[in-house]
Amino acid sequence: MPTLCRPAVAVPEHIISLKETLDLARALHTRHEQLPLVLRLIKNTQVAQRHIVQPIDITLRHPGFEARNLVYVREARARVPAVVEQALIHAELTADRIDAIIYVSCTGFTMPSPIAWMINALGFRSDTRQLPIAQLGCAAGGAAINRAHDFCLAYPGANVLIVACEFCSLCYQPTDLSVGNLLSNGLFGDAVAAAVVRGQGGSGLRLIGNGSRLVLGTEDWISYAVKATGFHFCLDRRVPGTMEQLAPELRAVAGEFGWDAADLDFYIIHAGGPRILDDLSHFLGVDPAMFRYSRATLTEYGNIASAVVLDALRRLFEAGAVHDGAQGIVAGFGPGITAEIALGTWATHPAPSITDALNLAMKEAMT
Amino acid sequence: MPTLCRPAVAVPEHIISLKETLDLARALHTRHEQLPLVLRLIKNTQVAQRHIVQPIDITLRHPGFEARNLVYVREARARVPAVVEQALIHAELTADRIDAIIYVSCTGFTMPSPIAWMINALGFRSDTRQLPIAQLGCAAGGAAINRAHDFCLAYPGANVLIVACEFCSLCYQPTDLSVGNLLSNGLFGDAVAAAVVRGQGGSGLRLIGNGSRLVLGTEDWISYAVKATGFHFCLDRRVPGTMEQLAPELRAVAGEFGWDAADLDFYIIHAGGPRILDDLSHFLGVDPAMFRYSRATLTEYGNIASAVVLDALRRLFEAGAVHDGAQGIVAGFGPGITAEIALGTWATHPAPSITDALNLAMKEAMT
Repeated sequence: MPTLCRPAVAVPEHIISLKETLDLARALHTRHEQLPLVLRLIKNTQVAQRHIVQPIDITLRHPGFEARNLVYVREARARVPAVVEQALIHAELTADRIDAIIYVSCTGFTMPSPIAWMINALGFRSDTRQLPIAQLGCAAGGAAINRAHDFCLAYPGANVLIVACEFCSLCYQPTDLSVGNLLSNGLFGDAVAAAVVRGQGGSGLRLIGNGSRLVLGTEDWISYAVKATGFHFCLDRRVPGTMEQLAPELRAVAGEFGWDAADLDFYIIHAGGPRILDDLSHFLGVDPAMFRYSRATLTEYGNIASAVVLDALRRLFEAGAVHDGAQGIVAGFGPGITAEIALGTWATHPAPSITDALNLAMKEAMT
Repeated sequence: MPTLCRPAVAVPEHIISLKETLDLARALHTRHEQLPLVLRLIKNTQVAQRHIVQPIDITLRHPGFEARNLVYVREARARVPAVVEQALIHAELTADRIDAIIYVSCTGFTMPSPIAWMINALGFRSDTRQLPIAQLGCAAGGAAINRAHDFCLAYPGANVLIVACEFCSLCYQPTDLSVGNLLSNGLFGDAVAAAVVRGQGGSGLRLIGNGSRLVLGTEDWISYAVKATGFHFCLDRRVPGTMEQLAPELRAVAGEFGWDAADLDFYIIHAGGPRILDDLSHFLGVDPAMFRYSRATLTEYGNIASAVVLDALRRLFEAGAVHDGAQGIVAGFGPGITAEIALGTWATHPAPSITDALNLAMKEAMT
């Protein structure tokens, strides 16, 4: 059974605190009519600090879409290798054992995708399947886990590397002044995350099933306007309200496997913002404390887009507080509005290989 | 066993002939030092005409990246539905029977992807898996077939809709004046293609296996420069030469299934340009006439990027010249440089469902 191994995560060395964010908002938008609202919303995010790939003064300048995208490439090449190496160590695999790479990112765009560079530079096999996804936004972390799961169901011995590389600071648009934009400027952070889904062996989250759900009629609520200046993030104020519709969907996906989404042992939820977490715990009927790993990601790193679920999962691994056989859910949310949901059980021991399982069954049958 | 059903393809109503292309090249680049070479290369493409989404005079104006991308959205919404409807009819399925949509396109960029719109507007289920791919270029048609195949291996009863929507004319960049660019201006065309991979039932190409190959050290040979003016196509003159390296890879993938890539019954090859087809037939040791469906696509539509393999496959279906059990290969080529290779056998009768096969086996065992 496919197993999602311990993720590796790195955040950049440049840090901006909540106080600096608020000071900047005040300095840059002195005359903005809704400044008090913006400041209150930013405080409410409970984001204590974010990490960004460049110092804040450089981040605030817009050097043009072309230069920014080149910064994305430069920073990805500098920061992805160490995270990938650590994820491989966690999975007890070398690069040549990886059969597919799923690279998700909505904050830079290249063709070919960075997977071609990874194969050339990081020792992956030339027959590695390449699956780059740029259009699923924050839901892409969950989607990557689910498509890796599917790939291992199709090819039971396969191993899939997931990489989520999000430099949200490179999508800062100084001319976007809506309340949603100014809030986003205080919410998003940068991070690189990676994890391996092993088709056989490995310890961590044994993947049981997955599902995807779109909330009908909300495709304009989270979107990019694509312009000469790059990707402009557009956020509708109704987004947090969608948890009322998504909670039943989480319940439905869990229910397909005989699980009760209100009574699981752990929750790895996309920390899009504090109200997402508050509303979901309310509508699911789950103690807010159960979302502590997602809250920690939000507080320490901000919303790091598709990397959130992998970072929250990393915290779950590091806390070591889960017992074997514990049941949990991973839910990424993003544009569409889409939820990508995975169910898994905790397993500290490697799953037996098919051969081992057959040998064991034969031995038992013969005694 | 998963079956790739008959594709549907539509090309836009605006047509530009080879003569018009050559006249335009002469008029626009009178003083270009390499104009004679460019004209010779364009003639050599053997592209008789291309279809484009806007009249040529509008196509030649660059209204800015933002406006162009909005044209992409407008034209995709106008042209995709009828093609999808036809592909569903070919597969004898309704939209609610589709479990995943793979949408590939490298000529427009949106977030959320057009799949969210398709679910909202075209009657697909809200739990349809969404797999948008924007970064695999011309190889994405092959990749879509292969990932659909994988999905049906993971979920044997599933059905996957593939859509390739390529409006290459929206990537025309009047300021790009390299020989590769001017050649590309005479090579690429627009088209929308769709096809269904049925996990059970259906007639067409029974998918046996697939593989992906990257030619090491060639990631800069086909690429986009991402600029304020949009995606700028960069083509290295060494690209056609990679067929010498890819022919053995096609042989290797076929060999994994005990097939001989030099001795198959049909070939569906990405018609990137005439030399791609000439070189591949030479290095594979296959009669060039075996690539006639790809050549027909190139001549009548130009290089329509990820839609080429689906259109060549449509022509194979329509020719009706293949016998049951015939063995064939589909190969998409694109940036990386990547080859996405699929193997299949021709089957005019629906594959028996697992239940039917079990019933049949039981009946046979009992007599």
